[in-house]
Amino acid sequence: MEKLKEYVSVKDEDHFYHQGAVELLIFNFLLILTILTIWLFKNHRFRFLHETGGAMLYGLVMGLIIRYVTKSPDVESGTVYECEKLKSGPSTLLINITNQVYEYQYKREISHHNVNGRQGNTMLQKMTFDPSIFFNILLPPIIFHAGYSLKKRHFFRNLGSILTYAFLGTAISCIVIGLIMYGFVKAMVHIGQLKQWEFHFTDCLFFGSLMSATDPVTVLAIFHELNVDTDLYTLLFGESVLNDAVAIVLTHSISIYSPKENPNAFDAAAFFQSVGNFLGIFAGSFAMGSSYAVVTALISFMHLTKFTKLCEFPMLETGLFFLLSWSAFLSAEAAGLTGIVAVLFCGVTQAHYTYNNLSADSKMRTKQLFEFMNFLAENVIFCYMGLALFTFQNHIFNPLFIFGALVAVFVARASNIYPLSFLLNLGRKQKIPRTFQHMMMFSGLRGAIAFALAIRDTDSQPKQMMFTTALLVVFFTVWVCGGGTTAMLTCLQIRFGFLVFFNRVGVDPDEDLKARATSQSAPNLDKNTTKAESAWLFRIWYGFDHKYLKPLLTHSGPPLTSTLPEWCNPVARILTSPRAYGDQLKDGDTVYIINNDELTENYESSAHIAVPAQDSTASTQATGKEDIQEGDLGLGGYKLQIQHTAGQPQKNSLA
Amino acid sequence: MEKLKEYVSVKDEDHFYHQGAVELLIFNFLLILTILTIWLFKNHRFRFLHETGGAMLYGLVMGLIIRYVTKSPDVESGTVYECEKLKSGPSTLLINITNQVYEYQYKREISHHNVNGRQGNTMLQKMTFDPSIFFNILLPPIIFHAGYSLKKRHFFRNLGSILTYAFLGTAISCIVIGLIMYGFVKAMVHIGQLKQWEFHFTDCLFFGSLMSATDPVTVLAIFHELNVDTDLYTLLFGESVLNDAVAIVLTHSISIYSPKENPNAFDAAAFFQSVGNFLGIFAGSFAMGSSYAVVTALISFMHLTKFTKLCEFPMLETGLFFLLSWSAFLSAEAAGLTGIVAVLFCGVTQAHYTYNNLSADSKMRTKQLFEFMNFLAENVIFCYMGLALFTFQNHIFNPLFIFGALVAVFVARASNIYPLSFLLNLGRKQKIPRTFQHMMMFSGLRGAIAFALAIRDTDSQPKQMMFTTALLVVFFTVWVCGGGTTAMLTCLQIRFGFLVFFNRVGVDPDEDLKARATSQSAPNLDKNTTKAESAWLFRIWYGFDHKYLKPLLTHSGPPLTSTLPEWCNPVARILTSPRAYGDQLKDGDTVYIINNDELTENYESSAHIAVPAQDSTASTQATGKEDIQEGDLGLGGYKLQIQHTAGQPQKNSLA
Repeated sequence: MEKLKEYVSVKDEDHFYHQGAVELLIFNFLLILTILTIWLFKNHRFRFLHETGGAMLYGLVMGLIIRYVTKSPDVESGTVYECEKLKSGPSTLLINITNQVYEYQYKREISHHNVNGRQGNTMLQKMTFDPSIFFNILLPPIIFHAGYSLKKRHFFRNLGSILTYAFLGTAISCIVIGLIMYGFVKAMVHIGQLKQWEFHFTDCLFFGSLMSATDPVTVLAIFHELNVDTDLYTLLFGESVLNDAVAIVLTHSISIYSPKENPNAFDAAAFFQSVGNFLGIFAGSFAMGSSYAVVTALISFMHLTKFTKLCEFPMLETGLFFLLSWSAFLSAEAAGLTGIVAVLFCGVTQAHYTYNNLSADSKMRTKQLFEFMNFLAENVIFCYMGLALFTFQNHIFNPLFIFGALVAVFVARASNIYPLSFLLNLGRKQKIPRTFQHMMMFSGLRGAIAFALAIRDTDSQPKQMMFTTALLVVFFTVWVCGGGTTAMLTCLQIRFGFLVFFNRVGVDPDEDLKARATSQSAPNLDKNTTKAESAWLFRIWYGFDHKYLKPLLTHSGPPLTSTLPEWCNPVARILTSPRAYGDQLKDGDTVYIINNDELTENYESSAHIAVPAQDSTASTQATGKEDIQEGDLGLGGYKLQIQHTAGQPQKNSLA
Repeated sequence: MEKLKEYVSVKDEDHFYHQGAVELLIFNFLLILTILTIWLFKNHRFRFLHETGGAMLYGLVMGLIIRYVTKSPDVESGTVYECEKLKSGPSTLLINITNQVYEYQYKREISHHNVNGRQGNTMLQKMTFDPSIFFNILLPPIIFHAGYSLKKRHFFRNLGSILTYAFLGTAISCIVIGLIMYGFVKAMVHIGQLKQWEFHFTDCLFFGSLMSATDPVTVLAIFHELNVDTDLYTLLFGESVLNDAVAIVLTHSISIYSPKENPNAFDAAAFFQSVGNFLGIFAGSFAMGSSYAVVTALISFMHLTKFTKLCEFPMLETGLFFLLSWSAFLSAEAAGLTGIVAVLFCGVTQAHYTYNNLSADSKMRTKQLFEFMNFLAENVIFCYMGLALFTFQNHIFNPLFIFGALVAVFVARASNIYPLSFLLNLGRKQKIPRTFQHMMMFSGLRGAIAFALAIRDTDSQPKQMMFTTALLVVFFTVWVCGGGTTAMLTCLQIRFGFLVFFNRVGVDPDEDLKARATSQSAPNLDKNTTKAESAWLFRIWYGFDHKYLKPLLTHSGPPLTSTLPEWCNPVARILTSPRAYGDQLKDGDTVYIINNDELTENYESSAHIAVPAQDSTASTQATGKEDIQEGDLGLGGYKLQIQHTAGQPQKNSLA
């Protein structure tokens, strides 16, 4: 009893000191190192190793140090106790040890082969944090930021292609990887390299779906720095953002696909149930995310009516914006939907409606806040990936499987990009050139999402092997493909002589647009036809959005009284913002509206575009609306900040 | 085996769905409700219930709902298992249950009497999160923000009094509460109300020290809104900030005070060891925090030399600032010191040096970021306090003990404020008036720190009772004292007719200063004498700081070449920022420097203050430097934002 007492008091003191502090300090240290490295690299215009690659490298080194330098002080672990009375693992366990009751919390299931191989190093255990932290804390800001900073105009111009790559492409990629891996697994079992685990075709498909989430953050950062063609940028960015969403839902659908009898046989009912699940979850998450954004827009819209002025309290406004956006994610997760998809569309909708209602101060605050959170979360994840290679304790390295996965990933990427580009080019007036296709093929990096999906479930041996493999594929693609981006760009430019798309280095994307509009020759025609391509899909939506939703949810757009039929006038009058009427008179704001709805305006007057008008619109856009979309990759915000302040001083000081 | 399989797969699916999402969603929901309530209150200028009180109330209601509405689905818990082989509780436990190995993690020790009373409600368990989250994640931003936004000028003017209240006052409060509680405990044991636990005098002192941390956030928010006298504000704010630090270190020192023999007897050696511990930990934490800030200042200072320009990447700058400040906290914790003290002084030092080196963009970013984090963290903590009353499972309500604690807290506050004020008034030229003393007495609310210290250790029964009591004292003081602040202010004003200090409602603190300076009569004299009071303490420090540290660490101040002896010139030339020379010529920046070091300037030319110069300084100050110190309590940032932009447009657009 006395001895136990002593033990407990030592434990208490330990609690009092540094519970969790050391682990967090290690992460802080890695992040500080990463930031200093980025600073150095920026300084020397060194683009070979991106910040994410650097973060991963530092994580790797730190993992190595932790693994082989720290001692294993906890002698107790490694011993398995028998508790005959228990029939299943409860979530909490009360255990009576020498007259003292201790509470233990369920952590995970451990395969038998891992029990003996455990290092019993508490430091390692502490460094491997809960996968739910990834999903609930680290991923949402990244995905939200992607949605919030989507270059809407360019995105919608290429929407058809992006959707094709994202949905069809991901499905193709998933199936191709699944098939190749199934072949590999069968072959490995055949030559005795792999013990006969329960490695079904669905497991291979699961692996295929999680490996289909691309994360070209490295490539996009370099594109952004070099100002590579906006269409290529948008195609890649849009594809990767949506394809993450698709891959996550797909992984989820496959994980709950459970054929009734033989797990290897094809069960049509279960298959269609999975497809139904996929569609239902996707649509549900989309609805959940958008509706939270609409609620935010409505609340922030209220701020100009006489009753209340939320915009006078930018802290409350920012707080509400942040919390509602995060709630979109959490609600979707709690409802069994996919939070990532919800938060993505929440971000897009927030940027489309709520952003226009925010006070000037909150616009900047939200932008900077999410930029900052995105930056931190991204680097934490990549550091953690580096760490995980050495600190995660149940790795199963299988060289053949890893080799197979690398092959599968590249074959799948190829059979996704090239055939789909061919098909899309049949329909597109402005073709996707070969060089773009090669670049997209090359930019199929795997990153945070693939890792997060893989680490979510590492209970069984096949899953552990998949996790290890996914991690190594991420390393390989980030370092090799990410590091080679600049070289690849140069190489493609030289070998294919495709100078038209790469000689705009250093030109602002908006300048690019303006240049097209003013030159009025082939590119201008091109633009109109490109627009017409996707217009059939969105003509109705845009009309509806411009006429009804924008006036209802924001202060821009025509007053509802002019767009709704006459008998709705009483209702319309109440719902329209008083500013909407005023805006029709003021010159500056009219430009702002047109410019907000540039697509609508273009399609309405698509027969002829007046060059000077277009010109002035485009230039306003460069300083006004587009600024939110520029800060894409974390580090471009500063320049924009200046543009914003310089271009609209009266908004900053008066709004 | 088959059945187990099924169980495991259900568990997995549950993992896949909403692990942690529901709990986070509940917090988000509470915070959204709180924000909407604040908005409503602000709108109606309703000051009876502060946001923190509101957050606590919502938390309480939610806790009630969770406790009595949700079911207890986990039938397993509540059963205690015997594991004879174990001799002590290891940190992880591997248990073999029907051929499957599960890993369990040590959570805490449970007293026997709690085992049967456990509700076994998993929801409740999930809502009670780890105390280390408080200390490592939620408290640092609050404390850092307090340090970062300290009104330095007013703080230093009253430093003597603030230090007296913080150190002597907290010690008095701790001892008085300890003695009263010891008396109560003895009496309760005597009348049989309390079973004879091991409730030593050190336990009572421990309770005394944790209850000595005041948190007048509610009161200060109202002061800020009403623009109550700056000296009273500074006295209270400074006292509470430092007294948190003192109380934390005191609690830590007491918890490791272990007399050799009889725990009730006084052991001089152990006592002096504790005092030594206290001083060592305080000094060490101070050094740790300041040195991290100095490192940050040096890194950010480097940005104007030719080699690198960190200020071009405000994201990196902000990131580095954030991470280094947090690291100050974590390093101190990891080294066995007190992180809160470290992060507090880190904040003060960052504001003093690093802030001047940051780019205009980063200045705003850091200010807004910490303001936002402070706001969120504060409301999360208060929500959680509300929740804890119903969701925490090991409460021990002892009405007599609670009553005793309430009495003790007020007696201790009284025997701290009144005698110390009397003593201070003997030395002060500008006395602390009676009304201020009453207000300070009344503002002794308990809040986040007391709660966090109490929840850190709830393993034994006395500690559980202390936790319950601390929680209820927090409720009482926040609702009753916090809610009554406006009434109390009015009451004191009427009964004591002390209009001089309260008729400046609506006047900016800087206007206040200006008014004093321009009226040139008694108040002006007063100010000079007040300054002279504390000047003897800080004359040397200020001279040193102004002449050597400021030029070394920031771009302001005189160039080192002019302050260092001549033979140091070569070194001085290297270390001085090129901007320091330029600043001597430019008019605007000279004002900025003077204004930065107003205290120094004042003491140097304290014999005579030129009224017009003072006037221009003060007005620049209102837009320039002071803006960081205005955003104190989270919601004042907007007005300042405008001032900032309006006052320094060239800085925003060019820097």
